[in-house]
Amino acid sequence: MTGTTTLTFEALKELIGDIYLKAGFSPLAAASLAATIAAGERDACKSHGVYRIEGCLRTVKAGKVVPDAVPAVEDDGASGIIRVDAMNGFSGPAFEAGAPLVAARAKKLGIAALVINRCTHFSALWPEIETLTGMGVAALAMCPSYATVAPAGGTKPLLGTNPIAFGWPRPATTPYVFDFATSVAARGEIELYRRAGKTLPEGWAVDAAGQPTTDPAEALAGAMLPFGGHKGSAISTMIELLAGAMIGDLTSTEALDWLGTTTLAPHHGELILAFSPERFAAGRPGDPFAKAKALFEAVAGQGARLPSQRRFTARAKAEAEGITLTADEMALMERLRDKGLDAV
Amino acid sequence: MTGTTTLTFEALKELIGDIYLKAGFSPLAAASLAATIAAGERDACKSHGVYRIEGCLRTVKAGKVVPDAVPAVEDDGASGIIRVDAMNGFSGPAFEAGAPLVAARAKKLGIAALVINRCTHFSALWPEIETLTGMGVAALAMCPSYATVAPAGGTKPLLGTNPIAFGWPRPATTPYVFDFATSVAARGEIELYRRAGKTLPEGWAVDAAGQPTTDPAEALAGAMLPFGGHKGSAISTMIELLAGAMIGDLTSTEALDWLGTTTLAPHHGELILAFSPERFAAGRPGDPFAKAKALFEAVAGQGARLPSQRRFTARAKAEAEGITLTADEMALMERLRDKGLDAV
Repeated sequence: MTGTTTLTFEALKELIGDIYLKAGFSPLAAASLAATIAAGERDACKSHGVYRIEGCLRTVKAGKVVPDAVPAVEDDGASGIIRVDAMNGFSGPAFEAGAPLVAARAKKLGIAALVINRCTHFSALWPEIETLTGMGVAALAMCPSYATVAPAGGTKPLLGTNPIAFGWPRPATTPYVFDFATSVAARGEIELYRRAGKTLPEGWAVDAAGQPTTDPAEALAGAMLPFGGHKGSAISTMIELLAGAMIGDLTSTEALDWLGTTTLAPHHGELILAFSPERFAAGRPGDPFAKAKALFEAVAGQGARLPSQRRFTARAKAEAEGITLTADEMALMERLRDKGLDAV
Repeated sequence: MTGTTTLTFEALKELIGDIYLKAGFSPLAAASLAATIAAGERDACKSHGVYRIEGCLRTVKAGKVVPDAVPAVEDDGASGIIRVDAMNGFSGPAFEAGAPLVAARAKKLGIAALVINRCTHFSALWPEIETLTGMGVAALAMCPSYATVAPAGGTKPLLGTNPIAFGWPRPATTPYVFDFATSVAARGEIELYRRAGKTLPEGWAVDAAGQPTTDPAEALAGAMLPFGGHKGSAISTMIELLAGAMIGDLTSTEALDWLGTTTLAPHHGELILAFSPERFAAGRPGDPFAKAKALFEAVAGQGARLPSQRRFTARAKAEAEGITLTADEMALMERLRDKGLDAV
């Protein structure tokens, strides 16, 4: 098919929301997932855009996630931990229930943690980070995935691609945000190399025997490697501990055992820390936001790029000109909206 | 000089403590710094051992640190932030004053932060991390340094070597601990290449014009690079924000301006987060320590090494056989003990 369709962010969100409603999602879950996927398209993160919808539906169809789960908030009103049990649903509704609470608790105590248990997490972490920076707190988020990455010096999948994301609120402009996998590459990137018949850069993966490989198929049958050698491996292990073992949820090995495949969206927990810069800076000289601004300007001033700038540029363009979808993408969405789970 | 001397950990600590007392350190500061340096020797971390004593004394002599500062604890007894003003002294006494408080607060609230302001930090972070894991909490520590590292894609020093360290308590055995610089290499390593007349591995540094270099002297005149490309650069930037701007203390650029040199120990703040695994796991199935144990066994079981194992092996040997110092090291320590600041 040829031709393109340009939609506003709101119109795209509504179309995607209708797909999820047809597939049996609760209105809350449908709106939450639609906003996240539409944001991926808006920010030109195609790998987290419309492409992800089918995976969500297939995970529902496989019985691995409850599309209309009602998250349960546990909060004693005083401690530094806000816990939300996603009740085996998607992480979005659980996050939205917990986000205002953890931001408020951080402003009260200085620091607070949001724990999400028993969720399916199919998206990037930056939408959550940006929600929290929008509430005026700095935030650090992390979660396991399923075991596809060998620890540095190892030979077999044990760690997940374990993303980590951080955000710092900036008055009157876009926040400082980074969000990356602790593997050298995302699994989807290796799949793209395989489909294109290209060899991988060195250092991305080992084969099933634990030997370095540049063959994408052998890499997918073997294990990916952490970014940054033993340092990235240590950070990924920390994520297994804090956002798996510590919060009473699945490690990446347990998540793979539970799901039985790497072709559906993973089920595990998530840990998000929120910090109040005002509380941390209280009583000290200087404005933390002014100091941060000077740092960002010094990065940009030497020609280096702040993370997420490409996304924010794409966002500004989409807000001005709309979001352009291909005819194939539109046909896919219309088919999913009309047929629901029968289409996957 | 030839010949070696073997001392117990306690005897080495006492000898180093006498050096600091002679140089005008408070008994608390002398004991704290001596314990940290003796621990470096015990764990075969020579770069953080006896070698560091002279640097401490030179920093005192330059008037950049107060050797008998009395740290001031600020704690309202309720919030998630314990703050200790090191009063321009070394970080050790400030950390020791705050550590039991932040561990107790984490056990009460689930999570708590220790902020140390206005300190000189000359050591690795793992001694602090191990103090906290010994108190039964997981801990994440970070601090700026002084500007010697260019951000990924940049050309000039802006970030510090910004170390990050993490520990997880393990019942009845050594904790899981990592501690590393967010630069590819430590500045001291580049200096060792220079002295040895060797070229650097590629990717470690840029020269003063921002071009990649393998010449150690050009690297020292230019900038080091972060580990892991843009990912390590993002983590290092996060450390500037959280453990510099947010806590109302110096960023690495400000720290270099304040000190005016990279040959003395840096002055800045430090941020340490403490987590109570019991509180985070409460109400969830499974034992977080058992889950963590399974993860560590799976790492070791595929032939990968857990971080810090080399240190713990050296420690066990030192505890059984004592710590062996060279004649030069003994002569240096005796000279410093006898002459104090006049020797540097």
